Amino acid sequence: MSGNDRMQPDRVRVDLGSRSYDILIGRNLINTAADHILPLLGKRHVVIVTDANVARLHLEALEHALKQAGIAVDSIILPAGEATKSFAELERLCGLLLDMKVERSSTLIALGGGVIGDLTGFAAAVFLRGIDFIQVPTTLLAQVDSSVGGKTGINMPHGKNLVGAFYQPRLVLADTGTLDTLSRRELLAGYAEVVKYGLIDEPDFFTWLETNGIDVIEGDEAARRHAIGISCRAKARIVGADERESGARALLNLGHTFGHALEAECGFSDELLHGEGVAIGMVMAFDLSATLGLCPTEDSARVQRHLASVGLPTSPLSLQGRLWTADRLIAHMGRDKKVKDGRIGFVLARGIGQAFHPAHVDPDQVSALLNAAIAA
Amino acid sequence: MSGNDRMQPDRVRVDLGSRSYDILIGRNLINTAADHILPLLGKRHVVIVTDANVARLHLEALEHALKQAGIAVDSIILPAGEATKSFAELERLCGLLLDMKVERSSTLIALGGGVIGDLTGFAAAVFLRGIDFIQVPTTLLAQVDSSVGGKTGINMPHGKNLVGAFYQPRLVLADTGTLDTLSRRELLAGYAEVVKYGLIDEPDFFTWLETNGIDVIEGDEAARRHAIGISCRAKARIVGADERESGARALLNLGHTFGHALEAECGFSDELLHGEGVAIGMVMAFDLSATLGLCPTEDSARVQRHLASVGLPTSPLSLQGRLWTADRLIAHMGRDKKVKDGRIGFVLARGIGQAFHPAHVDPDQVSALLNAAIAA
Repeated sequence: MSGNDRMQPDRVRVDLGSRSYDILIGRNLINTAADHILPLLGKRHVVIVTDANVARLHLEALEHALKQAGIAVDSIILPAGEATKSFAELERLCGLLLDMKVERSSTLIALGGGVIGDLTGFAAAVFLRGIDFIQVPTTLLAQVDSSVGGKTGINMPHGKNLVGAFYQPRLVLADTGTLDTLSRRELLAGYAEVVKYGLIDEPDFFTWLETNGIDVIEGDEAARRHAIGISCRAKARIVGADERESGARALLNLGHTFGHALEAECGFSDELLHGEGVAIGMVMAFDLSATLGLCPTEDSARVQRHLASVGLPTSPLSLQGRLWTADRLIAHMGRDKKVKDGRIGFVLARGIGQAFHPAHVDPDQVSALLNAAIAA
Repeated sequence: MSGNDRMQPDRVRVDLGSRSYDILIGRNLINTAADHILPLLGKRHVVIVTDANVARLHLEALEHALKQAGIAVDSIILPAGEATKSFAELERLCGLLLDMKVERSSTLIALGGGVIGDLTGFAAAVFLRGIDFIQVPTTLLAQVDSSVGGKTGINMPHGKNLVGAFYQPRLVLADTGTLDTLSRRELLAGYAEVVKYGLIDEPDFFTWLETNGIDVIEGDEAARRHAIGISCRAKARIVGADERESGARALLNLGHTFGHALEAECGFSDELLHGEGVAIGMVMAFDLSATLGLCPTEDSARVQRHLASVGLPTSPLSLQGRLWTADRLIAHMGRDKKVKDGRIGFVLARGIGQAFHPAHVDPDQVSALLNAAIAA
């Protein structure tokens, strides 16, 4: 066990009154999970929900740690992939929980990435009208974004996350050791969301990332803990101010309006990971901000430069063989949950760390930007 | 228009902090719905969700009233019946709302009985992670029970209401005129829930019902308003004290543990309406209370007498041709959402108006009671 393994985890508090909870960040949290989970349990019974890939890597360790502490453990292994965030899998999951005679005082544990966290959290929100759940995110994306803040849900043929609930976990255990099992591409996709927090309202953090971001990606433990901690604190602060996304929380969608449209065009397939879409989307949001004279072009260039420097895509053209059209991308944007009275509310920026929302932009200017981006 | 039609509706406040809302009770509320709904709307767009039976009776009137006030109205007509409270219909409903490009600031209106209210409320809870909804209950059962208090949900093959949400409406419009369109059997089923409030903790109301209950059933407007008002106030008080059913709210399940088991044995078919099951269940709960020496036998007899006097069933034997077994009924009870550590928490009573929870009863005594009831 290295020095890092014995270190106390970092603790970030998400402050939401009676729904407050801690995010713990550190190595080895799966092996020591019972220390943190046991005090929160009603009945000493948990159901771990995970996917086939994550199960192979981490399920046995988590089951073992919990059983050793006298907790009864059931596990449900779902297919890996975005298609699992569906009504069909939600219904199946609820049926399996009923087959297991899970009661209101039992606790679900989501062990996996965003798909598992979103589906399991939604199931926890609606099963018997709500039971406790705990997030054990195993991807960088889930650790810095999807496991924090209580957004849960499933996809519809019309788009992603269109059905769901705001439902907070009782605890998030972000075991940085799990990041060692990710491909570089997956790590980078999560890293895009880390960069996002700097761009929204933490310019010093963005500056830190320009120097140290590569260490975060390459596995330096101290850099990882710092980046995940700052990201979770930023998200906790924004969510604490606006749990149900009536205002400030929309800032977290920086890069997501463009990104989602690109993902939708790719059929939400592995051709473009969510974080990759967000990286391209953030560049486009800054480009649009600069084009509109809202933001210095130097800031827009810095965003593009940093994302490219670590190996993230920064243009739709990085997806070779795709024929994009501005009209189709704009149609996707029009189906976003945050559309109000038919108008798309963009998150734009007055500079690095100065994002704002909503910006209602002339559709022709959006078209022009998109046409420039896809024809460049 | 009669004097009653021009009367101001009665108003019952459900006090739940930022989720508080009014229940309005009176004649003609559908025709005057816009007066009450318009001030609550974000976007002036509503989607009425109803079933084929109710649509025939009341949809045109509600649509007309809202359109006259400049509200854009879409309507969705679902199949009538308990089978509509399913994952399949929930998914279909969400898809239809997306097809209609319903936004977060639109409002759903549930026009119908408990099935429509529960399904629509649940859809409102999860569609785009939550949009506003309004209840326009058209059965006595829905007016005094299911439309109030925010329990929403769907059924699973394992049992009723096993998936859902606590999600409060913005307003309940209980138009007493709709009760004139109900069959006597449906009215009586709703009346059982009215009696329940007297039995829980309002003994004077039960005494009032012993004299005036028949007027409620036979259509006396003043008696109806009084009975619905008292019922809604009772439910509002209990829900206000315990929105998420961690304690006192369980009292509302008086008669429901036995009743649900009987309903389950009938496959939740029209053979036994929910309120009929509750009527029999309340008699059994009082009988069990008397058998255990908790409650005077005279009180138990009064409950049976009053329910029988208006024409409600009070024994499983009223379902002719059914062969009940105690074991099967107890197995159904064991699948209730409120089972904790495998133990069934009964609602029993120390007398009329003195219900309490949880009572953990020796399973042999429950068996003995059931055997006596089904062999009587």
